[in-house]
Amino acid sequence: MANTILGTTLICQVAIVVRDVEKATRRFAELLKVPEPTIIMANDDGSDTVTYRGESTQGRVRLSFFNLENTVLEFIEPTEDPSTWKEFLETNGPGVHHIAFKAKDRMMETAAKLEEFGFPLIQNGDKYAYVDSVDDLGVIIELLDID
Amino acid sequence: MANTILGTTLICQVAIVVRDVEKATRRFAELLKVPEPTIIMANDDGSDTVTYRGESTQGRVRLSFFNLENTVLEFIEPTEDPSTWKEFLETNGPGVHHIAFKAKDRMMETAAKLEEFGFPLIQNGDKYAYVDSVDDLGVIIELLDID
Repeated sequence: MANTILGTTLICQVAIVVRDVEKATRRFAELLKVPEPTIIMANDDGSDTVTYRGESTQGRVRLSFFNLENTVLEFIEPTEDPSTWKEFLETNGPGVHHIAFKAKDRMMETAAKLEEFGFPLIQNGDKYAYVDSVDDLGVIIELLDID
Repeated sequence: MANTILGTTLICQVAIVVRDVEKATRRFAELLKVPEPTIIMANDDGSDTVTYRGESTQGRVRLSFFNLENTVLEFIEPTEDPSTWKEFLETNGPGVHHIAFKAKDRMMETAAKLEEFGFPLIQNGDKYAYVDSVDDLGVIIELLDID
């Protein structure tokens, strides 16, 4: 795996775009009988530098995270800010937006290799990048600059 | 977790409906630098008893499976047989169809509990069952009668 573009096959997050993150979070917590995780508004302070399809955007988004046995399940409710999440919801309706792989300290380098492979960059912040692998794989790949 | 409907939080499969399972399989194998898994036609012999939205169907489907570090990624190409996979592709286009949880020896009992919870049965074979959790969670849940 070290010799591959991704360098890993561990899917560290499965992320679902929904219309109502409160409802999704409440219902999934009920199903698992776990406390509801806090819903956060990512980039509310605008400190992250977000680029979506070549244009600057604040890219605020409402998120919750469930730590499952083997991965993290994430719910995403887009805001009105232009973003891949909003585009996905408007185009597809609710559904799994992406699967994520860790690319610590090599996120944009990995995204560049994926672009050569045929998966162009859609959006990135300081710690995440999405590439368009939908035509081939049916799902967006996210790279995360985290351990 | 033992005291919950699912009895687990381990997502054992992430399954993506695509138009072209050969292409998805080839490209994902290239990306991971692994041999291409064999593509199988499930239920080609009609030995599985499949019910889709209350009606009998052969439910043939073309599948490939990638064993990743922490889960299995599955590609699904529907056939012309009526099925949840065909319905999904026609309604949503390519995308993640379901996330799967193991429910060995308690699959239909678990599906019945999920129905009470608000997630009605969509389709089942002898060893798999899908419930409609899309309104709440944005994704279908699959139960598998496997170890």
